[in-house]
Amino acid sequence: MDRPQGRILLVGFGPGHPEHLTFRAQAAITEAEVVVGYSTYIELVAHLLDGKEVIEKGMTEELDRCELALDMARNGRTVALISSGDVGVYGMAGPTFEVLHQAGWRPGAGDVEVEVIPGVTALSACAARVGAPLTHDFAAISLSDLLTPWGVIEKRLTAAAESDFVVALYNPKSGRRTRQIARAQEIFLKYRDPATPVALVKSAYREKEDVVLTTLADMLEFKIGMLTTVLIGNSRTYARDGLMVTPRGYENKYDLATGAVRPGEKPGRSLTSGLSPGVSSGSSSG
Amino acid sequence: MDRPQGRILLVGFGPGHPEHLTFRAQAAITEAEVVVGYSTYIELVAHLLDGKEVIEKGMTEELDRCELALDMARNGRTVALISSGDVGVYGMAGPTFEVLHQAGWRPGAGDVEVEVIPGVTALSACAARVGAPLTHDFAAISLSDLLTPWGVIEKRLTAAAESDFVVALYNPKSGRRTRQIARAQEIFLKYRDPATPVALVKSAYREKEDVVLTTLADMLEFKIGMLTTVLIGNSRTYARDGLMVTPRGYENKYDLATGAVRPGEKPGRSLTSGLSPGVSSGSSSG
Repeated sequence: MDRPQGRILLVGFGPGHPEHLTFRAQAAITEAEVVVGYSTYIELVAHLLDGKEVIEKGMTEELDRCELALDMARNGRTVALISSGDVGVYGMAGPTFEVLHQAGWRPGAGDVEVEVIPGVTALSACAARVGAPLTHDFAAISLSDLLTPWGVIEKRLTAAAESDFVVALYNPKSGRRTRQIARAQEIFLKYRDPATPVALVKSAYREKEDVVLTTLADMLEFKIGMLTTVLIGNSRTYARDGLMVTPRGYENKYDLATGAVRPGEKPGRSLTSGLSPGVSSGSSSG
Repeated sequence: MDRPQGRILLVGFGPGHPEHLTFRAQAAITEAEVVVGYSTYIELVAHLLDGKEVIEKGMTEELDRCELALDMARNGRTVALISSGDVGVYGMAGPTFEVLHQAGWRPGAGDVEVEVIPGVTALSACAARVGAPLTHDFAAISLSDLLTPWGVIEKRLTAAAESDFVVALYNPKSGRRTRQIARAQEIFLKYRDPATPVALVKSAYREKEDVVLTTLADMLEFKIGMLTTVLIGNSRTYARDGLMVTPRGYENKYDLATGAVRPGEKPGRSLTSGLSPGVSSGSSSG
């Protein structure tokens, strides 16, 4: 081949504020000759697009975008497909690999090179704006039933509500799709206190950012739209002074006022309610 | 007060490679006079620490670190508490707010200022190294029962397995804590095909990165440790050429070979199995 090898860069650019972009994501957009994304996303990285070919596409044209990117990359070009948040979380990475695989693409076979560049996902960005709601196990559920049968979504909502996950709802509502969020609230109210803290975070870190801290009972009284992420606390999450915090669980082992270890517990060991006492140690963040 | 106002910066520095740090996270570490974190974390950002006071702490001293940070900030200093990944996801943000609240801290009351700086979380970084496993609803579950009763963890494992979430297991195993991951596998095998793709990602983007793509049946045959994130696919996730991809669901609506819409379905509308036909539109990434 006399053409240079083409590349597809799958870029998550984070919440949409230039400070919360990673160095690699910025470099990748800069390296690209062609940048493909929704118009909203293109606007958010407009400052990086001088001199590039820019292809804006609508919401229902995802697969077209992936195919176009592949065509251009097979012609030797470097193409960035951009998503806000993390490109792997409900983003373009999945559909792109599906299209590549359908087209017979194989990694490292002289065909197009693909790089996935992770970003700060919407749930991390939204959580940061309200304190620390994600300090314990959490689930992300999209309420969009465009491509997922509603029965599957409802089953996941029930499972997450019942087993006390902190939950981030993506795509909670749109112009025509309004009943899903009401049904989600109903499901959670079966298993959680109506006073459970709920944060509605729209456009975190962007100009039109809007943050509402409310409760499970009252959440539908506020505006929820396409750009809102809904964070629902677990049974231990508390709200205070506009912040939402999910405890890590130190109170299970320590008296927080005195720092003393509770009777029967040992630092660095499983809780006494454990799978097999005394086989535990260590945890880390991430 | 004649002292400058102190600040606590809660910084998620992402997977640990300088390119996958956000601009704000780097600036925050640079602004800090004191940087507090586990020794592993301190090493990963060592290039940013010249001339700073650095306080390394062990794994079981999290609350001490938060208290120390508050003391120093109340003395007018700028203190960064750093976590790898996202500081809000099983990170230092939660325990810090707990300690602050216990100490009577209130935001905007002339007391210490707190800023949460989100980062690329471990699940995004690990997912990026194996393709696109998180394209659909997912749950994050820590297998550490140091602070969470094992019964709660097991309930969440069962719920996530049964309702077909993609699952990221954090803290799957440590020196003394080895039975939890085996029990997790047992639970998943009740609900998912033994051939379900599983990725074991250790130290994503770091020098000692190690990625294994295996299956639910075989996952325990490989090394799993404190620094491993275990990604378990959902019922649709497939593995191909060393990549793990969870489909978005286009095949529910479209014939992927021809692009034709399936009988009874409409682009931009709920699937016919929906909550109420014809009330749907729109989804976005994140």
